[in-house]
Amino acid sequence: MNFISIQNIDSLDKWVKQALKIKKNPLKNKKLGKNKTLVMLFFNASLRTRLSTQKAALNLGMNVMVMNFGSEGWTLEYEDGAIMNQGASEHIKEAAAVVSQYADIIAIRAFAGLVDKEKDNAEMVISGFLKHATVPIVNMESATGHPMQSLADAITMAEHKTEHRPKVVLTWAPHPRALPQAVPNSFVEMMQKQTEMDFVITHPKGYELNPEITKDSKIEYDQNKAFENADFIYAKNWSNYKEYGQITNSDPNWTVTADKMKLTNNAKFMHCLPVRRNVIVTDEVIDSENSIVIEQANNRTYSAQLVLQTILENVK
Amino acid sequence: MNFISIQNIDSLDKWVKQALKIKKNPLKNKKLGKNKTLVMLFFNASLRTRLSTQKAALNLGMNVMVMNFGSEGWTLEYEDGAIMNQGASEHIKEAAAVVSQYADIIAIRAFAGLVDKEKDNAEMVISGFLKHATVPIVNMESATGHPMQSLADAITMAEHKTEHRPKVVLTWAPHPRALPQAVPNSFVEMMQKQTEMDFVITHPKGYELNPEITKDSKIEYDQNKAFENADFIYAKNWSNYKEYGQITNSDPNWTVTADKMKLTNNAKFMHCLPVRRNVIVTDEVIDSENSIVIEQANNRTYSAQLVLQTILENVK
Amino acid sequence: MNFISIQNIDSLDKWVKQALKIKKNPLKNKKLGKNKTLVMLFFNASLRTRLSTQKAALNLGMNVMVMNFGSEGWTLEYEDGAIMNQGASEHIKEAAAVVSQYADIIAIRAFAGLVDKEKDNAEMVISGFLKHATVPIVNMESATGHPMQSLADAITMAEHKTEHRPKVVLTWAPHPRALPQAVPNSFVEMMQKQTEMDFVITHPKGYELNPEITKDSKIEYDQNKAFENADFIYAKNWSNYKEYGQITNSDPNWTVTADKMKLTNNAKFMHCLPVRRNVIVTDEVIDSENSIVIEQANNRTYSAQLVLQTILENVK
Repeated sequence: MNFISIQNIDSLDKWVKQALKIKKNPLKNKKLGKNKTLVMLFFNASLRTRLSTQKAALNLGMNVMVMNFGSEGWTLEYEDGAIMNQGASEHIKEAAAVVSQYADIIAIRAFAGLVDKEKDNAEMVISGFLKHATVPIVNMESATGHPMQSLADAITMAEHKTEHRPKVVLTWAPHPRALPQAVPNSFVEMMQKQTEMDFVITHPKGYELNPEITKDSKIEYDQNKAFENADFIYAKNWSNYKEYGQITNSDPNWTVTADKMKLTNNAKFMHCLPVRRNVIVTDEVIDSENSIVIEQANNRTYSAQLVLQTILENVK
Repeated sequence: MNFISIQNIDSLDKWVKQALKIKKNPLKNKKLGKNKTLVMLFFNASLRTRLSTQKAALNLGMNVMVMNFGSEGWTLEYEDGAIMNQGASEHIKEAAAVVSQYADIIAIRAFAGLVDKEKDNAEMVISGFLKHATVPIVNMESATGHPMQSLADAITMAEHKTEHRPKVVLTWAPHPRALPQAVPNSFVEMMQKQTEMDFVITHPKGYELNPEITKDSKIEYDQNKAFENADFIYAKNWSNYKEYGQITNSDPNWTVTADKMKLTNNAKFMHCLPVRRNVIVTDEVIDSENSIVIEQANNRTYSAQLVLQTILENVK
Repeated sequence: MNFISIQNIDSLDKWVKQALKIKKNPLKNKKLGKNKTLVMLFFNASLRTRLSTQKAALNLGMNVMVMNFGSEGWTLEYEDGAIMNQGASEHIKEAAAVVSQYADIIAIRAFAGLVDKEKDNAEMVISGFLKHATVPIVNMESATGHPMQSLADAITMAEHKTEHRPKVVLTWAPHPRALPQAVPNSFVEMMQKQTEMDFVITHPKGYELNPEITKDSKIEYDQNKAFENADFIYAKNWSNYKEYGQITNSDPNWTVTADKMKLTNNAKFMHCLPVRRNVIVTDEVIDSENSIVIEQANNRTYSAQLVLQTILENVK
């Protein structure tokens, strides 16, 4: 069993309930991971994912080996049949097969390059590991998805859910650097599995996410209108998907402000972090009582722990 | 309870005695840290602190997660109200609150930048964590202090103390690079808590440390005179505090030599390491039987272990 | 007891048998390393060695502290008597003595610089640690040797040995970058300890390894002739030893191809990895059933575990 995408979750409702159980007693399964090893491979920077996934593994009694692949290992080649007389020292075929022998589970972070859409959509790194590894693979944010984040988001919403059917809004917001679509992609996929929530995506025209992911999810280009009566505002920047990896809009009117939050039904404010204050969201909003971003980050531990626990139970 | 400064030590005498007890039986409290997690965040290079603090935590049975914040995480913003459209990706507010959720104790190393005195004195990084973290913070060398080093120094001196009231000399020595004042600052503060030792600081005129720290500690500008009848010579370079972060003196006459050691009362030679041989101190002195620098480094483990143990006992 | 070279193995046959026992039940000695600490110091990149040595230590119940010395610590000085007013911050004398106090075993990786033959042959880094450390030292690939690799190679060959007396061929192959001789050196030394195998080295004229290592091992300059009736083909590039560290040959005719493998006695293909596909060896060969490179990497764990276990048993 791998955990690569929100699609690997059979029942979101069941998973969220299990995660909340784990949160109440995180050390209950301390013996499950005994003498099992998690190898975490980072091709990119990481704070929350690095620490929460490690913490989750330790809660399960696992051994953890962390490696920054870029700086500590060898440059990888991903092309089949490549004549390797250039920069890359090792082929993904060997790397994945070899690491599998030291690991019971391999977790991988490898961001989108945002230069070549086709390459990013092909998920070169994580697909390579999936193909050539012989142990379960966990996605710690790949080019197109960050499912452990979205699972944590679902857990957080379940903890704060309203009595009525909640309205959840994913809103684009400006950012000085070009960011991947991984987080919004997985959030959209997760929301599509929510049976008791209404979901709206709002972003400037032209900033549509991959339509194969958004499918028939509702898009509202008027941010104010989208915010009306919302119960959860999930802010996130992403770079342009059509004009791939470009920043074609940096309109500060899309920043989430206290005035905009007033349009909502006293909505909770969410963001996956790290967040650019006063660019994505004003201090007033993120510092308000309605901001649940820190609890969201806390739930990363239980999201990761559920994923690892589910895999360990499957390989037993 | 935090451990940020020598001022967090209520009774130096009591702490030194406890550390010496720990040293005799370092695994005695192996259960105290069970299922507790130490997160170590490095904003700068580290050898002794990195390994001895980890070792101390392992002796207490803790889990340890080590992170080089600069290269593995995100650039932090420290200014309240900043519009984060420049280099920094994450605000200390979120970083500190988030890491607190994965840690029972956070230990931090963040050196002085030596460019902006006010900023360094404000202890931007460690103050930010103190303000926004929700778990105890341990100082692994901040801009202005290195209290776990000075505690190890106190332990080492207690092990080698003479029958008579010892004379301890902190002597400046030359160095090719501009170094922070953190180590001498904490050493001075620790010495001010020593009731049964005499203390003299010696350095070239103009190299005075922050007078708010040295207070009425004795300063003797004549190194030879300072060395007379000394029982401990503690050598350390620091850059100019008045002409902040500058090297205004590199006089090789301040190097600790065997001839100068002859002026002392057969003094022990101490240095926090790393040390520039034949610049700070000659080979002859550091390789002599009177050099206790290696034992000093050894005591870093017990200094850290006492700090962690005291915190763990307080949070129980 | 240190493990620096193949020469530290008293009986290769006995060691290989012990390693195969460990492989069958790797957790049998889980208590041997309890409360013992392995410090792994990397002066160079590492994938297999980094993970397999850690894994081996965890199998033995040890604590592991991993440090990338270059980026996380201080630049070291190795010259006795140096006036340290240049780049290096710390002398190997202090570094080795200090790390010894936090470790029960120190494992070190420090590659050849390939600029100064004399310096590389002097094994500056590992010799410095050997001289100044006070705990056992393990070589995780030094300038001139990689004995844990060659021990893994011996284990792998023992698992695949033929009924008749096998013929083992170490063949040079081209590579775009200048590589050290550490792996072939240790492989040669290990083969010289094999009493029931025939051994041939093949490489272009001028690519002779250090004659003090190869001694009377057979050299055959005609690769095709060397391959005849071989049972094991061990491919590896190394840079020129005479014209030290230079690439004086990059002849693609030395690449191991399926046609060349046909000259052999259905030989197994071996390489220490990472390997440049279609430069060192064609895809066809390395992807064939006769390729045992992944099992070779797997045996790195048991090779390391035997080394650590032997040391732990000696220090008890």
